[in-house]
Amino acid sequence: MNLLLLEDSDFIDPQHVRLTGRRLTHMQDIQHVSSGDSLRVGRINGLMGQGQVLELDRDHALLAVELNETPPAKLPLTLLLAMPRPKMFRRILQHCATLGVPEIILLNSVRVEKSFWQTPFLQPEVIRENLLLGLEQARDTVLPTVRIEKRFKPFVEDQLPAIINDQLALVAHPGDYPACPRGIDQPLTLAIGPEGGWIPYEVDKLIEAGMQPVQLGERILRVETAVTALLARLF
Amino acid sequence: MNLLLLEDSDFIDPQHVRLTGRRLTHMQDIQHVSSGDSLRVGRINGLMGQGQVLELDRDHALLAVELNETPPAKLPLTLLLAMPRPKMFRRILQHCATLGVPEIILLNSVRVEKSFWQTPFLQPEVIRENLLLGLEQARDTVLPTVRIEKRFKPFVEDQLPAIINDQLALVAHPGDYPACPRGIDQPLTLAIGPEGGWIPYEVDKLIEAGMQPVQLGERILRVETAVTALLARLF
Repeated sequence: MNLLLLEDSDFIDPQHVRLTGRRLTHMQDIQHVSSGDSLRVGRINGLMGQGQVLELDRDHALLAVELNETPPAKLPLTLLLAMPRPKMFRRILQHCATLGVPEIILLNSVRVEKSFWQTPFLQPEVIRENLLLGLEQARDTVLPTVRIEKRFKPFVEDQLPAIINDQLALVAHPGDYPACPRGIDQPLTLAIGPEGGWIPYEVDKLIEAGMQPVQLGERILRVETAVTALLARLF
Repeated sequence: MNLLLLEDSDFIDPQHVRLTGRRLTHMQDIQHVSSGDSLRVGRINGLMGQGQVLELDRDHALLAVELNETPPAKLPLTLLLAMPRPKMFRRILQHCATLGVPEIILLNSVRVEKSFWQTPFLQPEVIRENLLLGLEQARDTVLPTVRIEKRFKPFVEDQLPAIINDQLALVAHPGDYPACPRGIDQPLTLAIGPEGGWIPYEVDKLIEAGMQPVQLGERILRVETAVTALLARLF
């Protein structure tokens, strides 16, 4: 935990927070914090700064906080992601939050197994918890938005063109396509397929909606690796 | 499994292999392979090609193989990695094999917990197993080498300069350093620190040995994410 994230409900007044539960345990057992210590803190969706521990026991911590730093900039990105296998999905949410993805759209694909949509990891509180883990890691406070689109064709035909909005839009897909660009400095919509890739029909539909296909080389990456690799290369 | 990897001991003659165990189970239960099917195969540290299933039952599979493709090129890289937390270490081995790292040196650092060196995941057969998982994913056959260097100072002083050999060498470290370069096309030695980073003494020693410090931005990445992000950006 590189940043202690504060919920609105932690605040007892604008300069003081009271913490219990996971964050208290972490402060005591992992960070070995003592009364008087200073910690990096950030208010979820708000500013970051320092918190000084005024009281600390097994039941609660009381911190005086001063919030005066803006969180790091997000990537200018909308990430369209075929719904990943649940176990990988949690880690991908964390990676995305860490890397600064502001908006994730989870999309169906023929190669997304129906059971993936049943995972409890899609419950809003579990999504939020994993995004918070990623934000804590990166020292960011602003939660990405996550949208679920279970119907590929209506989403790609009716909504995707407005999201792309005539700006750069790429679909990562193995094949005889141009290499993925590097170090772009402009808004982007990026589509990443499921394990096994989009089917050709899906690639065609994404291209029709305004996306350009690009490839990352002959090595086949797991989705989790591809997400990080593409974002690191693109931005 | 995008590639069925064959051990030397699987070969009953140069054109035929007999498989049992994990790979047989995977072929039957996950890939639903039938007699007569063709699969992508590769001989560990050798060529890749096609295998045709001649016999298949619960006990064994017999394949006729034709190996005539060279595996994909490796990155021109020596990766110096502070020994990661064991759970993450396994995944990092897989990522490295998938991404084409040919040589990994596991190094001590003040921030590497002593217990990390005790993990059973450092046993040669477990390292090999995880590297094979990464190779199967990427469709590569050539096992990376993994070396263990538990003494930071003698390694960095006495051995590292010869490894760098006056070529490009970078140490990734947060701080007021130049941004990590992109799309380099030359041999590289890259050092990636532990969670929490190298200590200043270690950065100084790595610089003395010929490494240039570079940074990846203000977001703090987990080691696992940093490995993939750095390689994707550099190559």
